[in-house]
Amino acid sequence: MAVYTEVSDEDLENFLAAYDLGQVLSFKGIAEGVENSNYLLRTSDASFILTLYEKRVDEQDLPFFLGLMEHLSSAGLSCPTPIHGRDGLALRQLCGRPAALISFLDGLSLRRIAVEHCRSLGMALGELHEAGRSFGMRRPNALSIDGWRPLFEASAARADEVRPGLGAELSAELADLEAAWPRALPEGVIHADLFPDNVFFLNGEVTGLIDFYFACNDFLAYDLAICLNAWCFEADISFNATKARALMAGYRSRRVLSEDELGALPVLARGAALRFLLTRLYDWLNQPPGALVKPKDPIEYCRKLAFHRGLEGPGAYGL
Amino acid sequence: MAVYTEVSDEDLENFLAAYDLGQVLSFKGIAEGVENSNYLLRTSDASFILTLYEKRVDEQDLPFFLGLMEHLSSAGLSCPTPIHGRDGLALRQLCGRPAALISFLDGLSLRRIAVEHCRSLGMALGELHEAGRSFGMRRPNALSIDGWRPLFEASAARADEVRPGLGAELSAELADLEAAWPRALPEGVIHADLFPDNVFFLNGEVTGLIDFYFACNDFLAYDLAICLNAWCFEADISFNATKARALMAGYRSRRVLSEDELGALPVLARGAALRFLLTRLYDWLNQPPGALVKPKDPIEYCRKLAFHRGLEGPGAYGL
Repeated sequence: MAVYTEVSDEDLENFLAAYDLGQVLSFKGIAEGVENSNYLLRTSDASFILTLYEKRVDEQDLPFFLGLMEHLSSAGLSCPTPIHGRDGLALRQLCGRPAALISFLDGLSLRRIAVEHCRSLGMALGELHEAGRSFGMRRPNALSIDGWRPLFEASAARADEVRPGLGAELSAELADLEAAWPRALPEGVIHADLFPDNVFFLNGEVTGLIDFYFACNDFLAYDLAICLNAWCFEADISFNATKARALMAGYRSRRVLSEDELGALPVLARGAALRFLLTRLYDWLNQPPGALVKPKDPIEYCRKLAFHRGLEGPGAYGL
Repeated sequence: MAVYTEVSDEDLENFLAAYDLGQVLSFKGIAEGVENSNYLLRTSDASFILTLYEKRVDEQDLPFFLGLMEHLSSAGLSCPTPIHGRDGLALRQLCGRPAALISFLDGLSLRRIAVEHCRSLGMALGELHEAGRSFGMRRPNALSIDGWRPLFEASAARADEVRPGLGAELSAELADLEAAWPRALPEGVIHADLFPDNVFFLNGEVTGLIDFYFACNDFLAYDLAICLNAWCFEADISFNATKARALMAGYRSRRVLSEDELGALPVLARGAALRFLLTRLYDWLNQPPGALVKPKDPIEYCRKLAFHRGLEGPGAYGL
């Protein structure tokens, strides 16, 4: 949540010379997105977000991310769309970093989630999955089942520093999931990080999905499993089945879930919980000194994982 | 340059219930201002800045700062003006901190300063001083001549860590300035921190002065001396007399400078350089671990101080 690269008025002027966007009226660094530097640019024509991609984003993935946003936006999804310069390019260099200008979306990200927000979110997620069908590029999910073991191994020796017994618990969970993970479910483009920070609302309805920098190809239902974890637990980590029911109903109003997908939801939800647990655990154990971003507590996801592990079927998700 | 206090959608909704500002369209933390947390709020009516005052601002000073902005803005100066709620109040509490909503100003702060910017800045500064005449509140300048000795003493023992001999140099300079400081010059409300970060421009003209949180009563010409330091040195700390001349000419087109004020400028400029040198030195020697803000290099102001010390009169300022 910080601006890592400072863009001067001169840098901005040189960068914008490639575009026709009217007169610049204001330009402010915004505290949005953990990975990149973001600026809000307002011109006489419209508002835009200028993003400078910092080290954690692989430059080779940017054509996928920007192409996806453009594809989804053309298909009518409310997400940022890259702005092209007169040379046709949307991705260029600024202050030694890859940078792109994208459209600005109204709306606020919420901390206090109500049932109706979950319904609207489910609809937006179903629409994203449907619109993504015709997108031609592919990006494998490096943070799906095959990526978890190396991620676990990078933290295994020190996992018990966070909670005694955590290493053994994660080891067993990982083995279970490797055995139980579905082999064949409908695949497509998933957002893969659709947390409340990345969804804008106005008047209770979704007005925008942002931050597509984890998007990839994977089981579509896995994206839903991520949302069950991110949206349907209360602050005390109790599971709100009414929210889950609304999320599922919203989704199913836009895309049909097969019996296989429904049956796989508890294991997918365990997997999604493990994925965020493992990355948070790694970040927790490897905080750089003087870091700008306080890492998120991994234990929250231990408790979510335990909830899903205790289920006998998808009925607990309000079905 | 960070958001220290996170304001949730719920906090915002409760806060805004006291105002009539139309529908909220977006709300983003911005990386502006070293001292406070700032958010850019856009509603169906207009754009605003929401500021939460963090620890470094004394709550008792806020009525002065907000009253001054309102006074200057009513007098036609382009500066933020506090927005009043239906209860008439402009200052209230949010997330346990004093907070105020102020109007949003278009414009960009510049890094690459041209001569014409200095002229426009001088005019704006002269207008500020004229408009401040009729402001009824007073706030002494804690960072003027009487404040420098305690500030120096807080760093004196370790000053040579920054540069060998710096302690002795500052001690001599302080003694000189205490002897030479003017006793009687025209006084009034000064901005006291009018660095390029705090001035917005569009098309080469000043469109706004911001960040009045160091404003106080002092010699008016001391504000001009601060600007000579902040705007008229090049990156290599060479003094650009053409910029100084433009700054002075702009100022004098709005307010008449007396012979006493002109004659005092070199000593005021030394004082202004010492003031920023001393606060930067203190911040440099007292960096909290894991600080969000990298302190500014104090040595830049040693070199500016040396320039002013070498002058025989105000002629070097392009007069």
